[in-house]
Amino acid sequence: MKHLILNLSCPDQAGIVAATTQVLAQAAMNISESHQYGDKESGQFFMRIALEAPAPCEIKDVQALFAGVAKTYKMDYAFYEASSPELAVKPKVVIMVSKFDHCLHDLIYRTRIGSLDMDIVAIISNHPIDQNRLEATNIPFHYWQDPKENEKKLRALLEAEQVELVILARYMQILSADLVQTLAGRIINIHHSFLPSFKGAEPYSRAYERGVKMIGATAHFVTADLDEGPIITQGVANIRHDMGVSDLVDVGRDVERRTLAHAVKLYLQRRILLNGKKTVVFE
Amino acid sequence: MKHLILNLSCPDQAGIVAATTQVLAQAAMNISESHQYGDKESGQFFMRIALEAPAPCEIKDVQALFAGVAKTYKMDYAFYEASSPELAVKPKVVIMVSKFDHCLHDLIYRTRIGSLDMDIVAIISNHPIDQNRLEATNIPFHYWQDPKENEKKLRALLEAEQVELVILARYMQILSADLVQTLAGRIINIHHSFLPSFKGAEPYSRAYERGVKMIGATAHFVTADLDEGPIITQGVANIRHDMGVSDLVDVGRDVERRTLAHAVKLYLQRRILLNGKKTVVFE
Amino acid sequence: MKHLILNLSCPDQAGIVAATTQVLAQAAMNISESHQYGDKESGQFFMRIALEAPAPCEIKDVQALFAGVAKTYKMDYAFYEASSPELAVKPKVVIMVSKFDHCLHDLIYRTRIGSLDMDIVAIISNHPIDQNRLEATNIPFHYWQDPKENEKKLRALLEAEQVELVILARYMQILSADLVQTLAGRIINIHHSFLPSFKGAEPYSRAYERGVKMIGATAHFVTADLDEGPIITQGVANIRHDMGVSDLVDVGRDVERRTLAHAVKLYLQRRILLNGKKTVVFE
Amino acid sequence: MKHLILNLSCPDQAGIVAATTQVLAQAAMNISESHQYGDKESGQFFMRIALEAPAPCEIKDVQALFAGVAKTYKMDYAFYEASSPELAVKPKVVIMVSKFDHCLHDLIYRTRIGSLDMDIVAIISNHPIDQNRLEATNIPFHYWQDPKENEKKLRALLEAEQVELVILARYMQILSADLVQTLAGRIINIHHSFLPSFKGAEPYSRAYERGVKMIGATAHFVTADLDEGPIITQGVANIRHDMGVSDLVDVGRDVERRTLAHAVKLYLQRRILLNGKKTVVFE
Repeated sequence: MKHLILNLSCPDQAGIVAATTQVLAQAAMNISESHQYGDKESGQFFMRIALEAPAPCEIKDVQALFAGVAKTYKMDYAFYEASSPELAVKPKVVIMVSKFDHCLHDLIYRTRIGSLDMDIVAIISNHPIDQNRLEATNIPFHYWQDPKENEKKLRALLEAEQVELVILARYMQILSADLVQTLAGRIINIHHSFLPSFKGAEPYSRAYERGVKMIGATAHFVTADLDEGPIITQGVANIRHDMGVSDLVDVGRDVERRTLAHAVKLYLQRRILLNGKKTVVFE
Repeated sequence: MKHLILNLSCPDQAGIVAATTQVLAQAAMNISESHQYGDKESGQFFMRIALEAPAPCEIKDVQALFAGVAKTYKMDYAFYEASSPELAVKPKVVIMVSKFDHCLHDLIYRTRIGSLDMDIVAIISNHPIDQNRLEATNIPFHYWQDPKENEKKLRALLEAEQVELVILARYMQILSADLVQTLAGRIINIHHSFLPSFKGAEPYSRAYERGVKMIGATAHFVTADLDEGPIITQGVANIRHDMGVSDLVDVGRDVERRTLAHAVKLYLQRRILLNGKKTVVFE
Repeated sequence: MKHLILNLSCPDQAGIVAATTQVLAQAAMNISESHQYGDKESGQFFMRIALEAPAPCEIKDVQALFAGVAKTYKMDYAFYEASSPELAVKPKVVIMVSKFDHCLHDLIYRTRIGSLDMDIVAIISNHPIDQNRLEATNIPFHYWQDPKENEKKLRALLEAEQVELVILARYMQILSADLVQTLAGRIINIHHSFLPSFKGAEPYSRAYERGVKMIGATAHFVTADLDEGPIITQGVANIRHDMGVSDLVDVGRDVERRTLAHAVKLYLQRRILLNGKKTVVFE
Repeated sequence: MKHLILNLSCPDQAGIVAATTQVLAQAAMNISESHQYGDKESGQFFMRIALEAPAPCEIKDVQALFAGVAKTYKMDYAFYEASSPELAVKPKVVIMVSKFDHCLHDLIYRTRIGSLDMDIVAIISNHPIDQNRLEATNIPFHYWQDPKENEKKLRALLEAEQVELVILARYMQILSADLVQTLAGRIINIHHSFLPSFKGAEPYSRAYERGVKMIGATAHFVTADLDEGPIITQGVANIRHDMGVSDLVDVGRDVERRTLAHAVKLYLQRRILLNGKKTVVFE
């Protein structure tokens, strides 16, 4: 038995689910979980199906089977092997980080214990990071200092390693619009504020100045429009009047790493579908 | 255009979704939202579908259309008109209450502003309640003092008014096992603790004694096994050391009314399906 | 035994607490609870003391007793009778409201059951409101349509009734800078967003447009600078992708009324002290 | 300038704060933050004061200064240097762990980045743990397999290293009543349920069986009465119907480590005072 996920979106019309599930039923696939949503505003229909397929079952064969109905309904679609600790080939991921490494270490730890079913193929930083701790993980670490060269190297790495997802785990350098466009829906960033509050730099200082009683973090897909990408998930924490900026940073690190890890988990479980400037999250 | 909800559960097997949605597609119904879940433990499959049906469309006609597939797959199923402020015939509800009326007033208010699409046909109490406030709502109020007679009267009322749901909004008298059995999945209770903590009487006093740092409330379907019915939703709030029992009661009222209202809303939106001693909640 | 609250702020220096509590001890007052905080940024010291005073005890006598130390340390200070259901003379409050009455009804209800120890002396609206429901409460209701006349009438009412606090419970008309200045720290507003996100009009529509995954509400003191007043407390709720603007409004009403009621309770318990553009909240 | 914390509790009576703060003022100490609370039920008064003392200032000198007033009011009291990244001599801590190491790694990480100002002098486990990862931290690791010998070794270690706090970071072996008594208020445990729900073994399996919609974790001081020690803080997370026991474990790990870290931080900031079977937490 093989566990697959099918995600699709297409212009909404009657009959999509019937046509889709009939193809799956003919292939003796069982639906163990599904979510469907038709967005009136965009006119798009979204579906996520968790499937049990009789083995042997190759994704390319299933795709062939599905090509007809996909064409008829003009579907964007993909089959994935379901996220699980036993997954043979896990999604390949690159983590980029600058000075603050709390999200990085959290992602590494969650990956090691099997909470995040992914294969971290490289860690890239534009700051020197304590390598002693990272070596223990056997993940290749790259310290790239030259902003001009970084993107070229990154593109080469992504292609060589067939990387699916780039995670900006508090990476403070802006990626080019061109790269962001190429990787649409494949770069997740954690912004250290409850967007759209405190867009831009130094959100904790500005939150302190404003005297807010809660701070937050926002995980979103990266687009050329800074801090305006589709939001995946958000988290918050309470703040007391006696907390200074450094306390906000401390509390915020917790919210950031939790929020980013949640977003990455949703991604790996194939629960996020893009809907223009928004996301559909099937939880 | 008519908005319907189809809820069903049946023994899990391949082909259920395909067979179901094909019938719907043939009737030119469009799926605007759907959730499906197969529970490995119970072997049951659960589905909720939000449908747009071309008018004129009568539920009894749709049911006739669906009878065949339902029989084939041994489905428990029901079609409902979707919850909305414009709903012509709203689900009929009875609210039962004892001394504390915070949940009662909250449900009345939410119904009036259209947040809960239901028709409260009667309020029943075993305590005298300030009727001046209730008269303004024009909802019939019954003050039933004799425990022996109450259930007989209640059964008569439920039948006469074709009541679908009974809400125990802090009603402190126990219903008979027989009545509870008859109304399985149709009585929602709010228990003023985070079950299974503090089952039984005076949960706030016991929470205070124990020195907990959070209190909670639990909305659940009522079964003959007290405080053991299927849980629908739970809520919590933080507690400080300087709060006495009366402060816990005060904070708790907020959690109770919010949690109960949430459960009732989930019910009215037909998002709750029974799965033995548990619930499937499609949110 | 009389329960009092003493709130004070003054320029920070050593000896404030010793001098203050010595005066109280000499008057045989017992401290049942206290919070103190020195803000490094503003250089101000803040203190809230809950006291048990031997009866008979008049606030004006206690104030006389305290005048010396208050002068020495340049204190802003006030004694209050502690909030309690038995409080003889409760703080007088005016509630202002426009079209949406969920916060209004919530405040009325909480006042009636003794959760908020205040005396609502008037409800003012610039919209016609269903008076049938309000009459039951016996609170005078004023429907003031002429924006030019409203402030004049309001000032007269506040003075005639010796009103302490004005609550803007979704009141959508802007008060003059002059009035706001006069009532600094005495007007609480509920803004229906998680400030500083979505300042200004129609926050729920804009939250929907942006595709946020959480919405919030902010209770703050009103200043001439719109939506920039000192924040008292904030609340949030999760949002799903299938929720439209009307769903956000529905969920938001809950957050708004909870957040506003919390802020009013903090005020009545004398837990909020102004610290420039921020608040110190002793919880 | 030296930053100190004074914590005290004593039988409640008038004059405690005045007497205490007068001594501090005479020593030219400034109060930067304070919390006070008189518990009507136990008749005890609790106080935490954050102080700025003019350097040079030795804790033993301050204690000598304070001995008189402490004796008069029968105080339990202690002065501490305030928690800060710059703290010269940090509280010495031992972490005990069994099979699950998520809390352990989280505590190590938070200590390294300066979020927890403590000195982990040893990690003790009754299970073999991946030492490769731990070596990088340079913290001595002890793998103690013989239950009969463990406590003897532990006592020797605590004395040799002058350990202040023992953290049971998912340590699944029961400590003797005698040891627990000796270390009253100095052992913090994380229980993987929202106590008093699911006391004892396998709380996640039982939470799954019961079909709860939220799970929790509870950090508490350890007493001889298992799972009945004074609660410090609690955390919760939402659960969906499609989550199995392993998902609950996964979500729970997050709640556990967050809740335990919060409790440890409160301890290090000297914000927790014991009040019989409860805690006073000054936040």
